[in-house]
Amino acid sequence: MTPHIPKTVRKSPYLPFGDHKNAPFYGMDILSVRQFKRDDLEYIFGVAHEMAGMVRRVGTFDLLKGKILANLFYEPSTRTSASFTSAMERLGGSVIPINEVRYSSVSKGESLPDTVRTLEAYADVIVLRHPEVGSAALAAKYASKPIINAGDGVGEHPTQALLDLFTITEEMNRVDGLTITMVGDLKYGRTVHSLARLLTLFNVRLNYVSPDILPMPEDVLAEVQASGTPQASYSTLEEVLPESDVIYVTRVQKERFADEAEYEKVRSSYVISPETLKIAKEDMIVMHPLPRVGEISMDLDTDPRAAYFRQVEYGLYVRMALLAMVLGKA
Amino acid sequence: MTPHIPKTVRKSPYLPFGDHKNAPFYGMDILSVRQFKRDDLEYIFGVAHEMAGMVRRVGTFDLLKGKILANLFYEPSTRTSASFTSAMERLGGSVIPINEVRYSSVSKGESLPDTVRTLEAYADVIVLRHPEVGSAALAAKYASKPIINAGDGVGEHPTQALLDLFTITEEMNRVDGLTITMVGDLKYGRTVHSLARLLTLFNVRLNYVSPDILPMPEDVLAEVQASGTPQASYSTLEEVLPESDVIYVTRVQKERFADEAEYEKVRSSYVISPETLKIAKEDMIVMHPLPRVGEISMDLDTDPRAAYFRQVEYGLYVRMALLAMVLGKA
Amino acid sequence: MTPHIPKTVRKSPYLPFGDHKNAPFYGMDILSVRQFKRDDLEYIFGVAHEMAGMVRRVGTFDLLKGKILANLFYEPSTRTSASFTSAMERLGGSVIPINEVRYSSVSKGESLPDTVRTLEAYADVIVLRHPEVGSAALAAKYASKPIINAGDGVGEHPTQALLDLFTITEEMNRVDGLTITMVGDLKYGRTVHSLARLLTLFNVRLNYVSPDILPMPEDVLAEVQASGTPQASYSTLEEVLPESDVIYVTRVQKERFADEAEYEKVRSSYVISPETLKIAKEDMIVMHPLPRVGEISMDLDTDPRAAYFRQVEYGLYVRMALLAMVLGKA
Repeated sequence: MTPHIPKTVRKSPYLPFGDHKNAPFYGMDILSVRQFKRDDLEYIFGVAHEMAGMVRRVGTFDLLKGKILANLFYEPSTRTSASFTSAMERLGGSVIPINEVRYSSVSKGESLPDTVRTLEAYADVIVLRHPEVGSAALAAKYASKPIINAGDGVGEHPTQALLDLFTITEEMNRVDGLTITMVGDLKYGRTVHSLARLLTLFNVRLNYVSPDILPMPEDVLAEVQASGTPQASYSTLEEVLPESDVIYVTRVQKERFADEAEYEKVRSSYVISPETLKIAKEDMIVMHPLPRVGEISMDLDTDPRAAYFRQVEYGLYVRMALLAMVLGKA
Repeated sequence: MTPHIPKTVRKSPYLPFGDHKNAPFYGMDILSVRQFKRDDLEYIFGVAHEMAGMVRRVGTFDLLKGKILANLFYEPSTRTSASFTSAMERLGGSVIPINEVRYSSVSKGESLPDTVRTLEAYADVIVLRHPEVGSAALAAKYASKPIINAGDGVGEHPTQALLDLFTITEEMNRVDGLTITMVGDLKYGRTVHSLARLLTLFNVRLNYVSPDILPMPEDVLAEVQASGTPQASYSTLEEVLPESDVIYVTRVQKERFADEAEYEKVRSSYVISPETLKIAKEDMIVMHPLPRVGEISMDLDTDPRAAYFRQVEYGLYVRMALLAMVLGKA
Repeated sequence: MTPHIPKTVRKSPYLPFGDHKNAPFYGMDILSVRQFKRDDLEYIFGVAHEMAGMVRRVGTFDLLKGKILANLFYEPSTRTSASFTSAMERLGGSVIPINEVRYSSVSKGESLPDTVRTLEAYADVIVLRHPEVGSAALAAKYASKPIINAGDGVGEHPTQALLDLFTITEEMNRVDGLTITMVGDLKYGRTVHSLARLLTLFNVRLNYVSPDILPMPEDVLAEVQASGTPQASYSTLEEVLPESDVIYVTRVQKERFADEAEYEKVRSSYVISPETLKIAKEDMIVMHPLPRVGEISMDLDTDPRAAYFRQVEYGLYVRMALLAMVLGKA
């Protein structure tokens, strides 16, 4: 929870000649959205935008040639794992994939601090996905190489929040002045909590549309309130759709409901279809962290406002930017 | 089942400068052996032959440097997965290995179309292994990057059929005029069905040797018949071995038999050994898609006619050729 | 068990132009510590020392660019697998990761000889981890590419023994004249058996400290005795700690004890802490093959004598050296 304190870079034997030691974010951990100020975000998005241009022009380039990423996933996340792998490979670097941690030394009782101190002998940066809150911070405390948090349980998933915000920036060409409506399960949806926090750094209006039993949590509401960001809750999307510039849809999970009939009712009342968007702006966008399980109709996919697959792509660019930055190459 | 209809190439943001957009097969999916005409095969095998020469001379080269393959396996197939990985790496490209799909977003209910549209943000080409017939075609319908079918259940496994035919081409220096004898489980053996179909494009004679309960299916027989290709079924190998240029052996699986004694009898009557080959031609070859579980004696491995390990190698070259071709580099 | 018999190199179609065919160890298998003489070890450690220097200066370099390693793990070992992957990637080579063998063709009954003869069509070198003693030798017998044994059950794990000895060499600047004390479970600890054997090639004194029920096995004691190396067993570490130059600590596993109380007593009496080391030399080192589960207090980690994380790093250099050597590049 320490906001924006660059980590003391403990030099390692692998620290290669030619790294830009004074580059912003060099040697830093990416643990939480709370570590970023607005100008940090703008810097990251500037680099990510350049990454997009380079990928579109040449596909892959050798900025991180010779660098190695240890992709350490204690729980499976094909999507996030593949995104970081691609980001490293598009920058010419290599990956050590570790997806089988449930079968690994951990089962012999090894602690996370020992695991990361082992892996940093092999890699230049470690991406960590772990089911326990605080695990990324613990790993970062012991590691002398940068740790990127790729999700620590119900805690943080900062690169998801960054890619969400980068998507808005790239698609709308600005963030200030936008009305952003979050829809679905706002109680358990880690992504909307982090995104709401990041958005308090900008001048936006936040709308929340959720079933009664799945509202935005009090602590997020309080934090948004404290920032002076206008916010309001609604029970139907129709009320706020016409004024929304961004609709951020999340999965409503069956497990959250005691009563299946209640689940089906709620679920169907939040499906976004071409019909739904008839009252929406022409230039608004629909986002979703994916995977979707019915919240957005496949009929919508060809609508230019459907931004969720482009969002996946923006995620690649943000992760390329972060990898390059913490390794001193951007 | 649409024969040889090149897919409309939907450009993606990653389409890199320098690709040969007019190259044959550029941007196409490889879904079924039915999409190939004889001159397509000859083109592919010409490229594969060049790949073989390059690998033998220099091992690896940078034709696909900077390209990324997503190796998406919904069911395990170490052999096929390793073959595509090696093919991409020998061409200087990178791989995103996705072998854990059973634990992935799919378990959250994500559809195959969404999965491939996500992965194509990370990769330039997708190799798909999936247990359901038609899955590769479904993926190809939604993907804007090329899909290569690496087996869709009892459906197709076109790269296996291509490598089988390429093996014959390289080992025998021709296909026309050959007598090719398929042995073993011809009923369930997907590889022999596809190979028989491909061979109808050439002037060959086909022999089938199988247990009574495992004959070549009627639809394959009809298709071969319609092509004018001479074919005949036999119950013992001895009858046709002396005239055969190629013996293609397949596994006879225990699960196919209600009676274990029957299985053991059949199994032992189809084992190919050095003794078996005494009546065979000097320059014939024995093929097998591997893994074998006793159908071919290990004593045969040192016989120059034992082509099954070389067949593995030819598979590498065919897959290198296909990857280079669909990516516009051959 | 054949000491140091170079394997006949059967040329393969992939043998690339430019390999140093007369380089020591070119085309050889690494199966057992018994295959090395003292001058072999000195040669390997010389190359490993150069690797360390290169990694520290430039991180990664292209000595094995274009070479492919098949990392074939029949049982999980994240640590060893990641180490070989990193070694290959730091040398500019590529890796085919095969961690899922339990789901692979093996489950269809394929033999190890067939598996390695398949994989060598895809790769230039095979690292094999297998639960059965003798499996690496069996694989080597059939493979025409070099096999590196990464552990075959209770058999050998030669690269671990080599990295242990390399750690001593690098940390102490010599091996001759040292007193090396092995602590913990000496009965089942594969690493201490192999290390003791290797150390008989040098002029050292060996001390063993273990619970009564977990002594160094008779066959190792006999071999050390036959070499003329002085050795002695103790029941407490305090007796020999002041004279020790190296303490090699191993895990004491709960499963070895019938009585849990006995386990707890033994376990706590062997924990190495800063307090323990008060009577130790200033320039001695503490080693551990990791993972540890309490045998060494985390308080010790900042003591310069705690060499176990540096030991991990030395392992990388030894594996880089071995890969380069068997591929004719060192």
